[in-house]
Amino acid sequence: MNRSQLVEQIRKKQSYLCVGLDTDLTKIPAHLLKEPDPVFAFNKAIIDATKDLCVAYKINTAFYEAMGIAGWQAMEKTVQYIPKDILTIADAKRGDIGNTSTQYAKAFFETLNFDAVTIAPYMGEDSVKPFLEYDGKWAIVLGLTSNAGAKDFELKQSGGSLLYENVIATAAQWGTPENLMFVIGATQSHFFTRVRELAPDHFFLVPGVGAQGGSLAEISTTAMNKDIGLLVNASRAIIYASEKEDFAAAAAKAAKQYQEEMGRYLKK
Amino acid sequence: MNRSQLVEQIRKKQSYLCVGLDTDLTKIPAHLLKEPDPVFAFNKAIIDATKDLCVAYKINTAFYEAMGIAGWQAMEKTVQYIPKDILTIADAKRGDIGNTSTQYAKAFFETLNFDAVTIAPYMGEDSVKPFLEYDGKWAIVLGLTSNAGAKDFELKQSGGSLLYENVIATAAQWGTPENLMFVIGATQSHFFTRVRELAPDHFFLVPGVGAQGGSLAEISTTAMNKDIGLLVNASRAIIYASEKEDFAAAAAKAAKQYQEEMGRYLKK
Repeated sequence: MNRSQLVEQIRKKQSYLCVGLDTDLTKIPAHLLKEPDPVFAFNKAIIDATKDLCVAYKINTAFYEAMGIAGWQAMEKTVQYIPKDILTIADAKRGDIGNTSTQYAKAFFETLNFDAVTIAPYMGEDSVKPFLEYDGKWAIVLGLTSNAGAKDFELKQSGGSLLYENVIATAAQWGTPENLMFVIGATQSHFFTRVRELAPDHFFLVPGVGAQGGSLAEISTTAMNKDIGLLVNASRAIIYASEKEDFAAAAAKAAKQYQEEMGRYLKK
Repeated sequence: MNRSQLVEQIRKKQSYLCVGLDTDLTKIPAHLLKEPDPVFAFNKAIIDATKDLCVAYKINTAFYEAMGIAGWQAMEKTVQYIPKDILTIADAKRGDIGNTSTQYAKAFFETLNFDAVTIAPYMGEDSVKPFLEYDGKWAIVLGLTSNAGAKDFELKQSGGSLLYENVIATAAQWGTPENLMFVIGATQSHFFTRVRELAPDHFFLVPGVGAQGGSLAEISTTAMNKDIGLLVNASRAIIYASEKEDFAAAAAKAAKQYQEEMGRYLKK
């Protein structure tokens, strides 16, 4: 999915919501555990309930890898099930030397056919470049993350700026706003003005709203650009809105609340 | 496998060689492609041929993920096939917020039962800690990598030192020489004295010898500590030593050359 298609979907749905499928067997409703593939059954119900309210799904690969082959199968089925007009993101935090990143790009963009994959930038340019060589696919590079550990290195000086600033300014040169986004954690919203200065045209994937406590209002008012430029992710706050048989309806209700709030910011 | 067991194996085999199983369907000998699981057939033959010459196998997960479920199955079978007195490393470069890293730790230490996994440190302490909570398992944190992109961030100033120095000094406090190692690329051997100052007791996993051009002699003479403290990895130079039916014998010969050279440095 390319940039203009993504922007079109956002305007049409009045939503820049990304639903995070951090699906965990220990957290899904008990009645699903008797399904042949409980994770896929859960994801399918969540997708059916939320697909008109969001423009992206983010699959956190860790939760699937923890289940081994069964998890990988559930991930494959989930990506295939997501409607083609919704962006699919593998939240995989990959990145390695060039010949290895080429294999990761193949894994996520060809074998699994995701539209986008998140990338850890520590190893520099050749670890990111292979993900930028696919038309209509996206590398989403970690800029400033939502976790406490962001202070350990990301917020330390790096040359004349902070490391995350250096990463954003540098990686922005490797790709374009057409094939590269940045992860910017919602819990770091006091940095959003600075981040937008560094990458005025890029999309940001913003995790940390909901369970992690970030504010949708603050992000939206400080970081929206002329093409919106935001995908705000909520995972646990949507998919685990109810632990019971009404989980899909509860997820739809939670997603609807985000969408309506986003609709208001989009109208401003 | 704990530290004293690893050191014992190194002394017994007179080797600190790690064989990298970057197994690629497009590079393995053609006669194996008719096997039901060509990747496992290749790995099995390589393991049989090299297991007395090395103390670790490093599986580069990207090459397996690129093949989807078949790759994940080949990876599972390979880890199970490796003798228990040899360290198994998932070269996976994972790392995410705490609850997600916990899932990655489960994936590699429980589901797949690797002894060690490589970790990208960009996201800081909570992204690494979950990997340190398993007895006899190892987090191998990226310090200074072997690729050209190392100059982009790792070799930039970070506070009063370079980023890789800051990462090593900081991460060394999160774990101990019993559960944490560092990746230090062999192509960066002029930094080895400094790296050893920063982490005198830790093991280093050293990729980049062989195809990437690093010098075994230089690393061994500058970075060995009283418990050796080195695992030197060669992948392509061993596993693709021959493209023909004699690939396993050729791999054994290449591994034997590394082992003999290592034996000489161990005697000094």
